Amino acid sequence: MRCEVVAVGTELLLGQITDTNSSWIGEQLALAGIDSFFQTKVGDNLDRIVAAIELALSRSDAVICCGGLGPTQDDLTRQALATVMGVDLVPDEAMEEHIIGLFSGRGRRMPANNLRQAERPEGAEFIEQMPGTAPGLICPIRRTGGSGEDRDLVVYAVPGVPWEMREMVTGTVLPDLQRRAGITAAIRSRTLRTWGESESGLAELLADRIRELDELGNPTLAFLASGIEGLKVRITAKAPTGDEADRLLADEEARVRALLGSLVFGVDDDTMESVTLGLLRDRGLTLATAESLTGGMVGSRLCDVPGASGVFRGGVVSYSSEVKHQVLGVPEGPVVSVEAAVSMARGVRRVLGADVGIAVTGVAGPDEQEGRPVGTVCMAVVVGAPGSGGRLGSAPADRTEDPEPVVGHLEVRLPGGRRQIREFSVITLLGLLRRHLAGGE
Amino acid sequence: MRCEVVAVGTELLLGQITDTNSSWIGEQLALAGIDSFFQTKVGDNLDRIVAAIELALSRSDAVICCGGLGPTQDDLTRQALATVMGVDLVPDEAMEEHIIGLFSGRGRRMPANNLRQAERPEGAEFIEQMPGTAPGLICPIRRTGGSGEDRDLVVYAVPGVPWEMREMVTGTVLPDLQRRAGITAAIRSRTLRTWGESESGLAELLADRIRELDELGNPTLAFLASGIEGLKVRITAKAPTGDEADRLLADEEARVRALLGSLVFGVDDDTMESVTLGLLRDRGLTLATAESLTGGMVGSRLCDVPGASGVFRGGVVSYSSEVKHQVLGVPEGPVVSVEAAVSMARGVRRVLGADVGIAVTGVAGPDEQEGRPVGTVCMAVVVGAPGSGGRLGSAPADRTEDPEPVVGHLEVRLPGGRRQIREFSVITLLGLLRRHLAGGE
Repeated sequence: MRCEVVAVGTELLLGQITDTNSSWIGEQLALAGIDSFFQTKVGDNLDRIVAAIELALSRSDAVICCGGLGPTQDDLTRQALATVMGVDLVPDEAMEEHIIGLFSGRGRRMPANNLRQAERPEGAEFIEQMPGTAPGLICPIRRTGGSGEDRDLVVYAVPGVPWEMREMVTGTVLPDLQRRAGITAAIRSRTLRTWGESESGLAELLADRIRELDELGNPTLAFLASGIEGLKVRITAKAPTGDEADRLLADEEARVRALLGSLVFGVDDDTMESVTLGLLRDRGLTLATAESLTGGMVGSRLCDVPGASGVFRGGVVSYSSEVKHQVLGVPEGPVVSVEAAVSMARGVRRVLGADVGIAVTGVAGPDEQEGRPVGTVCMAVVVGAPGSGGRLGSAPADRTEDPEPVVGHLEVRLPGGRRQIREFSVITLLGLLRRHLAGGE
Repeated sequence: MRCEVVAVGTELLLGQITDTNSSWIGEQLALAGIDSFFQTKVGDNLDRIVAAIELALSRSDAVICCGGLGPTQDDLTRQALATVMGVDLVPDEAMEEHIIGLFSGRGRRMPANNLRQAERPEGAEFIEQMPGTAPGLICPIRRTGGSGEDRDLVVYAVPGVPWEMREMVTGTVLPDLQRRAGITAAIRSRTLRTWGESESGLAELLADRIRELDELGNPTLAFLASGIEGLKVRITAKAPTGDEADRLLADEEARVRALLGSLVFGVDDDTMESVTLGLLRDRGLTLATAESLTGGMVGSRLCDVPGASGVFRGGVVSYSSEVKHQVLGVPEGPVVSVEAAVSMARGVRRVLGADVGIAVTGVAGPDEQEGRPVGTVCMAVVVGAPGSGGRLGSAPADRTEDPEPVVGHLEVRLPGGRRQIREFSVITLLGLLRRHLAGGE
């Protein structure tokens, strides 16, 4: 089974948007065991979209068209598919009602254009998942092959909006492709999430095992530096059955974990945030954050995790030094220092009545601050017993009643520009808390 | 003159690397006045690379091949080009010496493989720029067209390493293409940043003008929904000289602005954050944020703007209701309400001693809250006079001294998942502040 991707949109050709959808789909196809030999970008032009789809159908069994399903005149994928199928575009009443309902449910006026999205080529079906206002399409196509045989082909159309596209590809397109392909060989992959070593550092720790796997050919390991998401180690295993592939994966995961130790903080969709919140929840601890250079990014990342509210009370963004001194009770003096970070963590713990306070302060640039170079970042973690957080709203200067027994702190020099320094600060701070909660190293 | 891009590399199809090179080249071609209607990704397979280049030559005058010029067995672009040209690959002695010199100059051992990079298809020339160890190629090709006429075509091969590719494209490929095309036309583009209407809503407001432009063909308008970055309207103009193109752009911008009014918040690299911070700075006002469902994302986005510290004092992330009530002085009662948002904005303004307080509270999901459905978001803006922010650190309950004259508030129902609701909340809240600062509508 071969499947090509056709990404539709003049903005992709003009480089106004980078086509990340094709990359993501390519990765999913590979993991599903489906070959993808060509991916094409084409502009918002009916003839050329049709030509790109026809070409793809001439050399593959399936095509995923991504984009061009919006409500405007520029959105031509529906029409192109009707042309390829040799049928008319027909309005679908049930879909019209659904879309009208979506808008009225949100209390928004529906522009008349949006009803264009309820049209489908005759004989095409809508994809079940529909996270936005653009329905996806499954278009069965029959062509005669070179030796006169019938070829049953299929074109899927999914929106260009990444989260809408992903839900449809995962929910419908991949399972449908695998069913059509009668795929039995199972490919499974698992990603170990790490933080604390560089890519070459990880490669050294794993060097012997990588050499062995290069000879075996299965499973395989791959590294992927992912910024604020840490450094990923991906294990991929292939076997006749899913169970066997899962066993290979589990064995390999155990080997890699034995070599990497506590550098591994999670698996697959775990994030440093979700793992840290889980550890806090298990221990019955609440959390407050004090952020300077990150400006709220630590809190924002924590709130990305559904259920964060059971643990995360909130935080203080003390971007100006005055707020650090007067709201968080940081003593006068340099604010880019481990001492200031410890005071911030203690202060926010009291102000917000949390058991655990974490804090980060530093120089994101572009200019140095207090004579400290860009990239200097100081952080602190203060962990009390459950319920030790003190009276909520009490003054941060009240420091007598609580011994605040565990204090972790760190000063680092982070590489990169403003954004990268702030992102690395977030994962490094949460990683510091995680290590202390997990029992240190 | 039409030019296609063929990006070579199995890792691109597998999604291990996102193909940003094609996007960048596409943008450069557009700005150079050269049409690019298709871009293709193909894996490291000789037959398929040859097929992709042949197909591109059948519908365009020029092809830029990107990648596959390295020293390993996987690097097949040189061989593919020799096949397309119908010639042999020949070693180039001068290039061999040059590459050997590069390695010895850096005191590094040269792997024997690297001499493969000194081979070129007979009749091809090397590209003058050579920032790495992979030389680029210019391959002239003659084909017979459909009406029997000779077509003089060209394929350029450049490395996949972005900075090497860019130097060759800028230094040789684009000037050579423009010379071949006899191009004198200049293309300019400008992006208007908008917030407050959907894509189809904008299309309706601009419908008459879009129809006129469709007939004129120049300039053109394109919409681009960009999540937390708002909805972009891109104007592209073509003219014999840069000055004339700039004039067309300026005229069109004025027309579009007249139709969209205050929906337009900025141009090109402006963001809602940078624009809002600029308005505050101009008015000598300081800002504090109170965030619930966004968890710090408003603050984090504001701190992305260099120089934010002159305006942004900081914020309180009041994720738990207790923090809202006890730190920000929100009265007991529902916390997903406009009243709560107004109290939060007033509270944070006092607690942080800022002139302006903005606040957002709502339901990001996955579950409803206080009987309000997912997506319900309430926000408020309180703007005092410069210096009116009160004593920093004073209790939020102190509400007597300041009339807090301007209060804007809003309740909306936002679409999408947890992340999208939070992102739309951020830009909507900052947009509310912007409108009030800019004088309302």
